[in-house]
Amino acid sequence: MGGDFAPANEIAGAVEALRQAKNEFEVILVGKERDIRAELGKHETEGLAISVVNADDVITMDDSPTASVKQKRNSSLAVGIQLHKEGKAEAFASVGNTGAALSASTLILGRIKGVSRPTIATFFPSERGVGVLVDAGTNVDCRAQHLYEFAVMGSIYANRVLRYENPTVGLLNVGEEKTKGTVAVSEAHKLLESSSLNFIGNIEGRDILKGKAQVMVCDGFVGNVILKFGESVPSFLKAKLREYASGGLFRKLLIGAAQGSLRAALKDMDYEQYGGVPVLGVNGVSVVGHGSSSPKAIKNMILKAVEVAKTQLNTHIEQAIAEAAKAAPSDTSS
Amino acid sequence: MGGDFAPANEIAGAVEALRQAKNEFEVILVGKERDIRAELGKHETEGLAISVVNADDVITMDDSPTASVKQKRNSSLAVGIQLHKEGKAEAFASVGNTGAALSASTLILGRIKGVSRPTIATFFPSERGVGVLVDAGTNVDCRAQHLYEFAVMGSIYANRVLRYENPTVGLLNVGEEKTKGTVAVSEAHKLLESSSLNFIGNIEGRDILKGKAQVMVCDGFVGNVILKFGESVPSFLKAKLREYASGGLFRKLLIGAAQGSLRAALKDMDYEQYGGVPVLGVNGVSVVGHGSSSPKAIKNMILKAVEVAKTQLNTHIEQAIAEAAKAAPSDTSS
Repeated sequence: MGGDFAPANEIAGAVEALRQAKNEFEVILVGKERDIRAELGKHETEGLAISVVNADDVITMDDSPTASVKQKRNSSLAVGIQLHKEGKAEAFASVGNTGAALSASTLILGRIKGVSRPTIATFFPSERGVGVLVDAGTNVDCRAQHLYEFAVMGSIYANRVLRYENPTVGLLNVGEEKTKGTVAVSEAHKLLESSSLNFIGNIEGRDILKGKAQVMVCDGFVGNVILKFGESVPSFLKAKLREYASGGLFRKLLIGAAQGSLRAALKDMDYEQYGGVPVLGVNGVSVVGHGSSSPKAIKNMILKAVEVAKTQLNTHIEQAIAEAAKAAPSDTSS
Repeated sequence: MGGDFAPANEIAGAVEALRQAKNEFEVILVGKERDIRAELGKHETEGLAISVVNADDVITMDDSPTASVKQKRNSSLAVGIQLHKEGKAEAFASVGNTGAALSASTLILGRIKGVSRPTIATFFPSERGVGVLVDAGTNVDCRAQHLYEFAVMGSIYANRVLRYENPTVGLLNVGEEKTKGTVAVSEAHKLLESSSLNFIGNIEGRDILKGKAQVMVCDGFVGNVILKFGESVPSFLKAKLREYASGGLFRKLLIGAAQGSLRAALKDMDYEQYGGVPVLGVNGVSVVGHGSSSPKAIKNMILKAVEVAKTQLNTHIEQAIAEAAKAAPSDTSS
């Protein structure tokens, strides 16, 4: 219920996901039952495995993440995650307040053993395929140990879900030398260097779209700024093209002819195809999407949640974190 | 001498600058005199106001900024800034090791009274014109007071050099609410709010290219990552277009037609037109350019240095910093 177009886009996306996957899973829609049933009535749902669970509260984009989860115990977010916790659902997916989704996932599902801070990863397009960037904006202030754990979790995700063999890990920094950056980042460099991860060293802002590393590690402040900056590039280019086109009919014609290729070039920068991003480090599968997700983005998010649920991601994360704790020198800065 | 193509591009740029400005200023070339004279011989310099001052050392991109400035006292960087310090030049411009240029400028020229940390600003294109982002990568770890002073200096620059009337100032953060972000950033929000700057509140990554604020404030870690990310967007798009074009002849033709418009759209993302970025907070005019600057970029950097020298920027910065210190509550976190 927390999305900008709830419950319309959520329901349209769920219906599409079930059709595309030929009912190989079930969808439980959680939220204001009356609204949901009314919206479902607009779709052809005969034969689709959809059920509804009522939840009267809604956590909005303006709610404080932690407070709202504690106060609105009957929110669609809390009730949905609780269903997953109780084993009545094998995965949870939501769009809307990302901070609240992380808080509720952490509070209700609990942290994976050994994980200091659950996090949310995001995807970046690159010249060499999709990369995972973690943290995408949830932990703005990070110590070296947190960054190190993000690297471990991001690697497991890249390996298990994106199927990258021994994924490369880069630490986002202001230069290549290992002493660069803040204390936390240069300490994290040491931890990563002596780990069993496929650490390729520091990467810089220019390396993200180049695809220099398959897993990119940074704190949530940097991750959030870079993610939102990246998302704004297509509309900036469109504005500049409009400006150019206003210079005459011939230019307009050229741009008309160019649109298909431009759309193709920008396609990889469109978050819709990625659908949702994973909460990492909690005992469960929780996938989060953009508040303004289209039905297509929601369909992709649901399919992604199903895919993650099949991978036993968390068992692998727990093992990797335990091994990392054994192998690496302890982080003195934490 | 510190640029990737020194001294060829530096000299070609200086010659072009003098021609374009019809000799309204003089250029002193500082570096290995023999190399410079040999390179000058390749140009038609009759009647151009060019002189040469010898300096035998070179600070390279790999040198440590602070150490190299202290050890290589006869570097082109140190000798050039010293000429400015002694009043033999009214401005200094260089390309190459940006950290060393900041260090040498700070060490030799000294800080403006009241400025805690000199900084380097950079320019960002936007849908509404060019914006100033400060810090561009020099101070990776900042307290609230530093961010506040960056805002003051960036505002004066935007007003005096870019000629923005009462420029808008935004604090780069992970959300709009004033409590968002790290402790330093939320403290800086308080300082900015009670200042006399035209503070519009927090801005997010997506607001940079939108041009929501004319002056954007962040620490050097975030600034560096976002700057380098932005610079990499054009080559990413070109790679994606090549990928698309490889799909057939018709696509190739379409892309041929699209190239002019794309080039126009990306033009504003090309650092060459900005030429150089200013060191702010030192007692002098020091402008820094990309190590790989073309002659055109160097020409623009020299013209910018001349322009800044005419504005009495530093007198205005000193006044503004003094007023800010009087007006604002002191920063408890520093």
